[in-house]
Amino acid sequence: MAQNTIGTIFKVTTFGESHGAGLGCIVDGVPAGVKIDEARIQAALDRRKPGQSFGGKNNASVTARKEDDKAQILSGIFEGKSEGTPIGIVIQNTSQHSKDYGNLATTFRPGHADFSFYSKYGFRDYRGGGRSSGRETAARVAAGAIALQVLESLGDIKITAYTERAAGVSINKVDFSEIEQNALRAPDNEAAAKMNEKIEEIRSNKDSAGGIIACRVSGLPAGLGEPVFGKLDAELAKAILSVGAVKGIEFGAGFGAADLTGSVNNDNMRVDSDGKVGFESNNAGGIIGGISNGNDLFFRVAVKPVPSIFQSQKTISVDEAGIYSDCDLVIEGRHDVCLCPRIVPVIEAMTAIVLADLMLQNRASRI
Amino acid sequence: MAQNTIGTIFKVTTFGESHGAGLGCIVDGVPAGVKIDEARIQAALDRRKPGQSFGGKNNASVTARKEDDKAQILSGIFEGKSEGTPIGIVIQNTSQHSKDYGNLATTFRPGHADFSFYSKYGFRDYRGGGRSSGRETAARVAAGAIALQVLESLGDIKITAYTERAAGVSINKVDFSEIEQNALRAPDNEAAAKMNEKIEEIRSNKDSAGGIIACRVSGLPAGLGEPVFGKLDAELAKAILSVGAVKGIEFGAGFGAADLTGSVNNDNMRVDSDGKVGFESNNAGGIIGGISNGNDLFFRVAVKPVPSIFQSQKTISVDEAGIYSDCDLVIEGRHDVCLCPRIVPVIEAMTAIVLADLMLQNRASRI
Amino acid sequence: MAQNTIGTIFKVTTFGESHGAGLGCIVDGVPAGVKIDEARIQAALDRRKPGQSFGGKNNASVTARKEDDKAQILSGIFEGKSEGTPIGIVIQNTSQHSKDYGNLATTFRPGHADFSFYSKYGFRDYRGGGRSSGRETAARVAAGAIALQVLESLGDIKITAYTERAAGVSINKVDFSEIEQNALRAPDNEAAAKMNEKIEEIRSNKDSAGGIIACRVSGLPAGLGEPVFGKLDAELAKAILSVGAVKGIEFGAGFGAADLTGSVNNDNMRVDSDGKVGFESNNAGGIIGGISNGNDLFFRVAVKPVPSIFQSQKTISVDEAGIYSDCDLVIEGRHDVCLCPRIVPVIEAMTAIVLADLMLQNRASRI
Amino acid sequence: MAQNTIGTIFKVTTFGESHGAGLGCIVDGVPAGVKIDEARIQAALDRRKPGQSFGGKNNASVTARKEDDKAQILSGIFEGKSEGTPIGIVIQNTSQHSKDYGNLATTFRPGHADFSFYSKYGFRDYRGGGRSSGRETAARVAAGAIALQVLESLGDIKITAYTERAAGVSINKVDFSEIEQNALRAPDNEAAAKMNEKIEEIRSNKDSAGGIIACRVSGLPAGLGEPVFGKLDAELAKAILSVGAVKGIEFGAGFGAADLTGSVNNDNMRVDSDGKVGFESNNAGGIIGGISNGNDLFFRVAVKPVPSIFQSQKTISVDEAGIYSDCDLVIEGRHDVCLCPRIVPVIEAMTAIVLADLMLQNRASRI
Repeated sequence: MAQNTIGTIFKVTTFGESHGAGLGCIVDGVPAGVKIDEARIQAALDRRKPGQSFGGKNNASVTARKEDDKAQILSGIFEGKSEGTPIGIVIQNTSQHSKDYGNLATTFRPGHADFSFYSKYGFRDYRGGGRSSGRETAARVAAGAIALQVLESLGDIKITAYTERAAGVSINKVDFSEIEQNALRAPDNEAAAKMNEKIEEIRSNKDSAGGIIACRVSGLPAGLGEPVFGKLDAELAKAILSVGAVKGIEFGAGFGAADLTGSVNNDNMRVDSDGKVGFESNNAGGIIGGISNGNDLFFRVAVKPVPSIFQSQKTISVDEAGIYSDCDLVIEGRHDVCLCPRIVPVIEAMTAIVLADLMLQNRASRI
Repeated sequence: MAQNTIGTIFKVTTFGESHGAGLGCIVDGVPAGVKIDEARIQAALDRRKPGQSFGGKNNASVTARKEDDKAQILSGIFEGKSEGTPIGIVIQNTSQHSKDYGNLATTFRPGHADFSFYSKYGFRDYRGGGRSSGRETAARVAAGAIALQVLESLGDIKITAYTERAAGVSINKVDFSEIEQNALRAPDNEAAAKMNEKIEEIRSNKDSAGGIIACRVSGLPAGLGEPVFGKLDAELAKAILSVGAVKGIEFGAGFGAADLTGSVNNDNMRVDSDGKVGFESNNAGGIIGGISNGNDLFFRVAVKPVPSIFQSQKTISVDEAGIYSDCDLVIEGRHDVCLCPRIVPVIEAMTAIVLADLMLQNRASRI
Repeated sequence: MAQNTIGTIFKVTTFGESHGAGLGCIVDGVPAGVKIDEARIQAALDRRKPGQSFGGKNNASVTARKEDDKAQILSGIFEGKSEGTPIGIVIQNTSQHSKDYGNLATTFRPGHADFSFYSKYGFRDYRGGGRSSGRETAARVAAGAIALQVLESLGDIKITAYTERAAGVSINKVDFSEIEQNALRAPDNEAAAKMNEKIEEIRSNKDSAGGIIACRVSGLPAGLGEPVFGKLDAELAKAILSVGAVKGIEFGAGFGAADLTGSVNNDNMRVDSDGKVGFESNNAGGIIGGISNGNDLFFRVAVKPVPSIFQSQKTISVDEAGIYSDCDLVIEGRHDVCLCPRIVPVIEAMTAIVLADLMLQNRASRI
Repeated sequence: MAQNTIGTIFKVTTFGESHGAGLGCIVDGVPAGVKIDEARIQAALDRRKPGQSFGGKNNASVTARKEDDKAQILSGIFEGKSEGTPIGIVIQNTSQHSKDYGNLATTFRPGHADFSFYSKYGFRDYRGGGRSSGRETAARVAAGAIALQVLESLGDIKITAYTERAAGVSINKVDFSEIEQNALRAPDNEAAAKMNEKIEEIRSNKDSAGGIIACRVSGLPAGLGEPVFGKLDAELAKAILSVGAVKGIEFGAGFGAADLTGSVNNDNMRVDSDGKVGFESNNAGGIIGGISNGNDLFFRVAVKPVPSIFQSQKTISVDEAGIYSDCDLVIEGRHDVCLCPRIVPVIEAMTAIVLADLMLQNRASRI
């Protein structure tokens, strides 16, 4: 059964295929009275879209496909404020011209969802990946821009994702002010230059690269997350793993915590001179027992290399009778080499959506 | 708002605190006509419970707390088959005697959910961790035993979790037949002996250890998982992260995929002589586009070290007026040193619950 | 797919068959900090159970089956207050002895759910109706007693249901103080006596009777109900129609409104000397646009006559090969003649459950 | 918390205010492979829209407001078949020009949702009723046209609603072929003429009329409906009561059953010469124990008179400080006098949506 809605109180339902007439979403559950700046929705879409220049640098890692994502907001906002009714957003696909998809209608691209979609539905929209295309994340980013404004109306909450590692190159510092200054969305311009160099080398080999994205949230109150199945880490894990190309998530020390002892891993608590509770470390990533503890929320996300590469690959095709055969495939067109910089805004959007939902859910925790 | 239900068609709702009168679950959504062997529910609980001997070996890693978990099945099964009605299961807490909890009522144990629960609810059942206790997983394991029988009625699906690494020691082979032969539930008795040795050393330092659990599922058909938010990896990530002490999950090559190139990471497809589709590798862990591809499902889980250690720790307490102060805490009683072997059956149970749900959901994919 | 949960924030999941080992429910979503008097849960069950004496009068309308419904509360309440965790309640079936069900295993009783259950599941627990038995409502009544305490913690909300008509006899006045003074739970002792007389006559004809139950809720704030599918009347209609034997519901003037003109039906608003909004009539039953308007909530429920009658009835049976044949059936045992008085507490319970849920949902309406 | 989604597997989420930029819906959960004729979606919208001529007769009962409802289908359909992905539908509001709403921004119309929306959200889109406008049902009708095609792919299921009574005049026969031949959508042209006459008289009194709609579904298999809270009647009741102006629902004999005895009300079963099960009556309306029994589904719906009347009415207004005062209101513009004929397609749409959902849910009933 289809599952195109995320959230319990703050609910986002997306629709749209890569090369259909349009895509969009309904954002339901925004409480009445939230100031919504519609321009920020468009700005978020602009930040996600391909072909950007990223601070004047040559944007080597990103595809040149021209998507003109203009959001039309159809409902739910009146006189600059949310009405408490669903917000409908539509993005028309303007460049939707019929083209020759060659053998892609019957051949399954390795590393793509082609074969699993075909197995599931017995039928597949082969145009640009159909529903499995990364293009669907445009709707998530639009919804995330609303979620962020809900969060801002509830506190001084800041969500910042960035590329921590790409093509085997890691950052050496975290300076948030540099994130939008380089093509990789890394908080370290120098490391970003090295990542870019490495990515160019991989591109010239007709290959692609992966990486790791980190996300930090400050200003979150303690108490978010709903035991025992709607825990903060559980909900974030679901939301983030629902993004294509993501293969793992870890919170705080994450997989590294497996090798620590309890005396090192436990984040000891202290009261400061203002009577406020703080922690001496953050191995928990701000979550204990599935509930935020007031420390910064921190997690890392593994991003696989782009599956579309320009080398010839061994794969299979299917005929009308459903018989499979081996074949070779050379993918054409233009594709991203490394997805990290484009996934950064999507990770932020999904985080905002989860947090807005849990902030609203938390209102039901006490009488 | 409370979230004690997991699943959409196959739905499990658990209840119960560590030291309350009892715990249990309702398993709703089991189709009518599934043969249910009630003895397997009890066997699963027995496998999870502490104080076991594990093939005659000294079980150094596991606490000696005596939990006598007898499941009473109250409904939903008639003449050995599921009725299509909810299955109610209750486990009475037999050894529930009032005791002195000392300063635990007002002091927050580091690494435990005490402070986050207090922050959320303004009020806390301090007896043995209340709802945040690992004891809650008994209900999950009972439900998992039913999920597994649903899966078996639908195909030859096998779920096997095991300890891959503990206290910094990794396995060198994977022999499923050895898993239940050692105290660590590792598929390598020799490595398990070294883990145990290391854990004993850590125990003597009044400290604790973490580890990594791996899980492999064979026999899963291609097509499971519901785009775009109920993807197979997304649902598993949520279910697994909802287990206490888990800090991360990765599928297939996982975080390692971040450093691969696309030409290496893509799992090429081939047709065998029987016309069946296979893969030349499994970096995807059996999931592409959030849908199973017919390859083995494979994922790894990071387990943090047990937070209850016997060293003195810096922490805080709260008085009746809600004022916090610094204090030191020495935890007493008996506690696990490494959770891995006890979490193994919980990981299997959660996996079974998610897969049973997605197998039933998948029936709605085609007309 | 099974649907044994009602509610979105305040969620009740019930389990249990008529003649299984036990029944019960999980009440999830009670905010932390609600004072819960456990004795009121038992009192509510005692009020629902059969064989009561109702103010010293001969209780002609109610069966003599002896159900000893003792609720055991297993979790979720600590030191007299809700913990914010699920409340598990179990009622053991004490008198569950195997007996001879004669031809009921293969014969479908007219007016009962036997044939529809068999059609749905291909398999049926024929012992006392299994899951379709009215006995399941014991769990609802227990949950309702908790819902009521949640409502009381939020305001001075009073829910009163009563028999308005039974066996063709209507009440002539509404005096709430008389409801528990007669066997019919009618707010008019005199009318109740006439109903009872008529019911005795019907009983002596080996037949049964139906009736109409009314329900009034005072103290409800304006603003409850969630457009456009979780409207107050929509949620109540679902909850009330989920009770066995109920065949209709109407709000305010209800079906009578079909014959009114707008100028008569509209409830005009006036401001009183305290600046409070009031209405000059209540044809809307307190609901406009699916949202409470501050007027009393009022609705009526149609209850069909008890299907178990002692006359011979024409029906069908099924053999092991699934072949149907005509047959005659004479039902034995003891059965209610008119369900109204026993359904009154169930209607109140379902109303309390819906209102508690919508009161909590309403917290998310505004930022 | 907002509730703009209905259904569990077949899920419809609507958005849009009366005078916003547009409205629409996402229909999620359509299995892949259903033939979808997009023209039928438009045809359904055309049937719902105002200003129609209804078989050449003068359409006295219906408003002349010009809504040009053109549905744009943005996703989910590929090569004439559903893809298994969400179907996004948008209807732009073409005639959305700013106009003077006079005192409607601060005055609450009697019988309308103005006051309850204001009470709930503290803020209100006063333009044409905003979200509470009947215009929202356009999205439901579009979704219903898809639901109907899902149902048709699963069997020979026919849904027919009609006006049974309006302005105090009842039909004397049920001839489905006459329904679309008169302005009232009554299955009796002669009675329709009398209804129309009566409605014209009421209109000339600046007043409005209500009525009763009946709905019959043939071809439904036995076994639909999910105990104990997702019963067929419970789900229909919720869906139908979520339609504005509906004040009651009854199934089969409904409120009339309250006065029957069991021996009359029970629908006796018989096996016909083909071995097929039939019933000698249909007092149950095709539902027993909340599950369809194979008989025709039949229910009636109470529709209140249109609240917008042209007589002066007593009501209240609110000032910026939130202080209420009494006032008189004369509503202007053009409005329906009796909603029945326009609600008929909405009742059919909601019924189709519920039945499509329950048909898909029923697949999970047996292993």
